[in-house]
Amino acid sequence: MALTAVIRVPSRALLRPWARLRDAALGWIEPAGGGGVEVSAQRFASQKVLVEPDPAAGVAVMKFKNPPVNSLSLELLTELVISLEKLENDKTVRGVVLTSDCPGIFSAGLDLTEMCGRNPAHYAEYWKAVQEMWLRLYLSNLVLVAAINGASPAGGCLIALTCDYRVMADNPKYCIGLNETLLGIVAPFWFKDNLVNTIGHRASERALQLGLLFPPTEALQVGMVDKVVPKDQVQSTALSVLAQWMAIPDHARQLTKNMMRKPTADRLLKQRDADIQNFVSFISRDSIQKSLQMYLEKLKQKKG
Amino acid sequence: MALTAVIRVPSRALLRPWARLRDAALGWIEPAGGGGVEVSAQRFASQKVLVEPDPAAGVAVMKFKNPPVNSLSLELLTELVISLEKLENDKTVRGVVLTSDCPGIFSAGLDLTEMCGRNPAHYAEYWKAVQEMWLRLYLSNLVLVAAINGASPAGGCLIALTCDYRVMADNPKYCIGLNETLLGIVAPFWFKDNLVNTIGHRASERALQLGLLFPPTEALQVGMVDKVVPKDQVQSTALSVLAQWMAIPDHARQLTKNMMRKPTADRLLKQRDADIQNFVSFISRDSIQKSLQMYLEKLKQKKG
Amino acid sequence: MALTAVIRVPSRALLRPWARLRDAALGWIEPAGGGGVEVSAQRFASQKVLVEPDPAAGVAVMKFKNPPVNSLSLELLTELVISLEKLENDKTVRGVVLTSDCPGIFSAGLDLTEMCGRNPAHYAEYWKAVQEMWLRLYLSNLVLVAAINGASPAGGCLIALTCDYRVMADNPKYCIGLNETLLGIVAPFWFKDNLVNTIGHRASERALQLGLLFPPTEALQVGMVDKVVPKDQVQSTALSVLAQWMAIPDHARQLTKNMMRKPTADRLLKQRDADIQNFVSFISRDSIQKSLQMYLEKLKQKKG
Repeated sequence: MALTAVIRVPSRALLRPWARLRDAALGWIEPAGGGGVEVSAQRFASQKVLVEPDPAAGVAVMKFKNPPVNSLSLELLTELVISLEKLENDKTVRGVVLTSDCPGIFSAGLDLTEMCGRNPAHYAEYWKAVQEMWLRLYLSNLVLVAAINGASPAGGCLIALTCDYRVMADNPKYCIGLNETLLGIVAPFWFKDNLVNTIGHRASERALQLGLLFPPTEALQVGMVDKVVPKDQVQSTALSVLAQWMAIPDHARQLTKNMMRKPTADRLLKQRDADIQNFVSFISRDSIQKSLQMYLEKLKQKKG
Repeated sequence: MALTAVIRVPSRALLRPWARLRDAALGWIEPAGGGGVEVSAQRFASQKVLVEPDPAAGVAVMKFKNPPVNSLSLELLTELVISLEKLENDKTVRGVVLTSDCPGIFSAGLDLTEMCGRNPAHYAEYWKAVQEMWLRLYLSNLVLVAAINGASPAGGCLIALTCDYRVMADNPKYCIGLNETLLGIVAPFWFKDNLVNTIGHRASERALQLGLLFPPTEALQVGMVDKVVPKDQVQSTALSVLAQWMAIPDHARQLTKNMMRKPTADRLLKQRDADIQNFVSFISRDSIQKSLQMYLEKLKQKKG
Repeated sequence: MALTAVIRVPSRALLRPWARLRDAALGWIEPAGGGGVEVSAQRFASQKVLVEPDPAAGVAVMKFKNPPVNSLSLELLTELVISLEKLENDKTVRGVVLTSDCPGIFSAGLDLTEMCGRNPAHYAEYWKAVQEMWLRLYLSNLVLVAAINGASPAGGCLIALTCDYRVMADNPKYCIGLNETLLGIVAPFWFKDNLVNTIGHRASERALQLGLLFPPTEALQVGMVDKVVPKDQVQSTALSVLAQWMAIPDHARQLTKNMMRKPTADRLLKQRDADIQNFVSFISRDSIQKSLQMYLEKLKQKKG
């Protein structure tokens, strides 16, 4: 069973207009068979998140590298938070570009193998890590710019939404959005809050209920991304934008960012444990577990 | 005195660009002389709201039929809530199109005869029914699509705003908006909340203060409706949109809708009685009653 | 040392695309050397805010006259609030146009000489006056229309944002925005709230962090102003708009305006003293005082 087969599924799917919505959702499932990879990855823990610092420019590029689809495994989340913390403590770095090392995909979102067939303690640990990632990114003192060089559904979209600015590749096969409903699940309220802050209440209501995945042009129109450029210019554009934001005195910019975002982050902080409990009891339901199992089985068969 | 005369007033008025704003507001007054119709209608109570189910498609079309202008009488409101409840309990139905059976008008809004020359207990009963209609529609588990096939001022606009999607006929004589200030009254805070959630704070501030009634093209631009199509395609388009929304797993879509809307509905629920008291004491004022009486007299004279 | 030299700085600066952002921020500094003017102005206190009533039309034009850049000195703020109160108590006036008597500048915002080299009691008095100005304008029962006939950074922008409608001159050298971060300081939360209510959360997040100053066309696009017209039509257009708003029954319009804005004003009212304390302790910091001193020195040298 080749892991590359997994990537083929969403890739092909992305070529089909409507179907791609459902299939890209499949994209955020890493097959249970990927467990072997998990083990080997633990030996090279620092390889899920590559950090390329440029002290002269005061910036760093952070690349997600969790093939095939950069699913947000517990390991990747942990590494991401540690890497971010290191950068925030590094006086030579003031801005970071977030991008992907996996061709065609920014991140396919949460890792379903962390949410399926495990025990409640594991679900709780995983969800806490997802919360932690969001809180750290959303409130980061660094300037964060997303260089979205591939599809970015669900949790991938969330990461992009935490940034200060979003540059996306103009490939119409790529799309971005919180498509949770397509899988029969619901985006948590803080995903929703982050989206409403970005594209407004009405557009969020429609996008979230329909699980819309926007191609670049539509994402730009609705305000989900800020700029669309040819793929080979995504990273350089992100770096230019970073330079603009870094022209602002750090302290004033950071206080302003915090003023804009703290009330939203506080909503999660005030009910963080309850949110974990909600997730654990929801994901533990037989109906949800069965539905996730079916997806994983389907994926395995496709690769058979 | 022919009731058809009443409908002629807003119809003619709609042809005059600016004047139509004021005159369409008159459209939401049902003359006191219509009382005879009320009585006869009570015998055929189920006729104010026609429901045409299509179990094969899993949908129903709900048509308001309270000629001449679909004013939201206590009777219509009661029927609407009962019909909606029946549909929500009907496992064969997952989505509903809301539209009008009266030519040229979706609904002219609240029924002024319910708000004029009655006693406080009646005002309280009426207002509770208006609240109930809004709460039921706004939080409905069904997919609701408005097929706006005519003018839709004040309460008519509110009904449209509660839906998940709004399709409007492209007739420039039709218009939609919360025009309460033109009559010297004020939209309640929950009308306002629903509008802000739909078109944003700034556009609402302007539209509510000026009592703006938007022709279809402008309504589309400001986000008050989602699609404008030729009149004969309004219902079919609404049904197509319904099918798109129904492609989403019900449970996930319903939880998402609830997450988006519950905080807004809760604001009313938390102060429902106070809101009724506010309405009763406002509408009972001599100055307001006189002003409403004058409108009703003016209407009678026009029909003389 | 000629005061006219001061005005030349921002004027010239406005001609340079990017540099104008920083320099226009300098525009809101009145040099310490202007103290002599302060004294003489105190003798003619009523001259900082000119009021031209037109009882026949039921309107008045209020012109800021604090050369060279209409900086919001304690004196101007006090006069503004008194003038506004008089107009609100004047039964013949229902609407006011706010504009500038100084060529090329609407208002350059807060007066740095009030915030530099003074004692904490003065800072507290000054900040209370800034709060008072905002609260009075934002909640005014009058229709307020801004005729923005010049550059409008920082506090100048805030005044415009409190109005019911904003008309701006189409001169690309003029710009408008809350550019506080460019000076290393932070817009208070109620500046932010007013901006978010006007242009939405995402646009505010970007504009506030980057301290963006928008030329008229961009200001229109982002929703920071409502109409852009040739400079010689700014005031007449503002008066036409005023007439439109005054066509609405006052009582209904005022209640509606209050319903839209009171929650935002209440946020400041609930923590007014704490907000003053924050300002005093922030502005009293050695680092901030040094930075402000440097700006003032630089201005003096430019005029040398």
